[in-house]
Amino acid sequence: MRFVKGHGTENDFVVLPDLDGELDPDLVRRLCDRRAGLGADGVLAVVTTPDGYFMDYRNADGSLAQMCGNGIRVFARVLVHTGLASPGEMVIGTRSGPKRVCVPADGGDIRVEMGSPQRLSDAVVSIGPDSWTAAGWSMGNPHLVVSDVGSLDRLDLGRAPVIDPADAFPDGVNVEFIERVGPAHLRMRVHERGSGETRSCGTGACAVAVATMAALAERVPYLVDVPGGCLAVEWRSDGQVTLSGPAVLVACGELDPAVIHSRTA
Amino acid sequence: MRFVKGHGTENDFVVLPDLDGELDPDLVRRLCDRRAGLGADGVLAVVTTPDGYFMDYRNADGSLAQMCGNGIRVFARVLVHTGLASPGEMVIGTRSGPKRVCVPADGGDIRVEMGSPQRLSDAVVSIGPDSWTAAGWSMGNPHLVVSDVGSLDRLDLGRAPVIDPADAFPDGVNVEFIERVGPAHLRMRVHERGSGETRSCGTGACAVAVATMAALAERVPYLVDVPGGCLAVEWRSDGQVTLSGPAVLVACGELDPAVIHSRTA
Repeated sequence: MRFVKGHGTENDFVVLPDLDGELDPDLVRRLCDRRAGLGADGVLAVVTTPDGYFMDYRNADGSLAQMCGNGIRVFARVLVHTGLASPGEMVIGTRSGPKRVCVPADGGDIRVEMGSPQRLSDAVVSIGPDSWTAAGWSMGNPHLVVSDVGSLDRLDLGRAPVIDPADAFPDGVNVEFIERVGPAHLRMRVHERGSGETRSCGTGACAVAVATMAALAERVPYLVDVPGGCLAVEWRSDGQVTLSGPAVLVACGELDPAVIHSRTA
Repeated sequence: MRFVKGHGTENDFVVLPDLDGELDPDLVRRLCDRRAGLGADGVLAVVTTPDGYFMDYRNADGSLAQMCGNGIRVFARVLVHTGLASPGEMVIGTRSGPKRVCVPADGGDIRVEMGSPQRLSDAVVSIGPDSWTAAGWSMGNPHLVVSDVGSLDRLDLGRAPVIDPADAFPDGVNVEFIERVGPAHLRMRVHERGSGETRSCGTGACAVAVATMAALAERVPYLVDVPGGCLAVEWRSDGQVTLSGPAVLVACGELDPAVIHSRTA
């Protein structure tokens, strides 16, 4: 089975360019095992459709995922790298609908249209004795953005922040904490529902830029530093948010799924 | 650059079959990065010598390593897989001298001669309020074996066990905790100096089998279950200890070292 391993701001994926059929959850868990497999945050399988390509995406635990702003860049880079698509504009099918992606021919940052943000209710976020009012935004998935956190580095994100009211997000919520680096330039840390603190979150980067622009009543291109790199976010006048960032292909080759077991199997 | 990714009882390695020149510590760190690289506990480079093959081995942090009972099996499997060696007996050079290795043609467990154990001083090992007298053994590297620990699963190995006297092992020591599964069959957990709790430790498996045989004045083949699988240990009448276990090759292919950065670089 052919594979490509790559990452977008250190959110890493195994891409299967020519898997025949549906992505099996057990295969996903085995591939993503970081000791007995190849190791990744998720698996992206290329599915050929009459309209082009669909990104069949599953998380490391085998669960279905709608969309991933970092994953789709790696997916698009693999389409171009393997000759399945030409550089430039393309549309990639995902479980949250078709996404317009631009892959420059020079290997530079890839831009993805992420949809329109929706304002959600505010909530109070607490870590230990500290509490902040956070702005709720949806980028398809829910986010709470804390913008007045003081020193980002001192935050303990080893546990999930406490949300009040407790039932505000029954399916969980991603919580972003931001620090201003300069004009239109933020730094963020993120606690993702189900995953804990991560090195990057594409929708989270969009949410923090949108929340900041909304608070300042401005619409300018933003840079968002995440622990795994830097992302660029724009919020266009048509309401669409675009996310741009790197997609790095580290290795490609052949793997033998039959020999890969999983600790959780 | 060609690579093979594999593991022995979930101690995982990137093997470079045709690296030209010495293994660069920075390249090792970048390859072993589990998000931005391929991810591994260490890198094994194949060095061709007039006598055969030498295993140039570095840990994930780039530091030099003498020998690894799990790594050398993966290394030997790669030699056979890539056609550099034929199945059967072979001698592989390591920083702790030449090691005799037997690779069966059928892909079964690989046996390595690990050298002769040496008795070291006993010491007291403590975790929280619990203390045990532990037997000191060297398999080239130092081990303390705790054999009367009660329930293995309840041990908290999130921190290094405390050793008394504190200066008994100035360069640190690996601590193994064992539980008897049956006659000549042990289960162990291990806290490795510098790494914390790991899924497997080849010299540790040898040390616990040797310590148990010495205490019972017997010399029979032992099985040792580690979290990542099962190893077999023999202590021959000539003093030599042999370690047998699986070596699984998960994937092979090409990687581009130029695109791989490291979080620690």
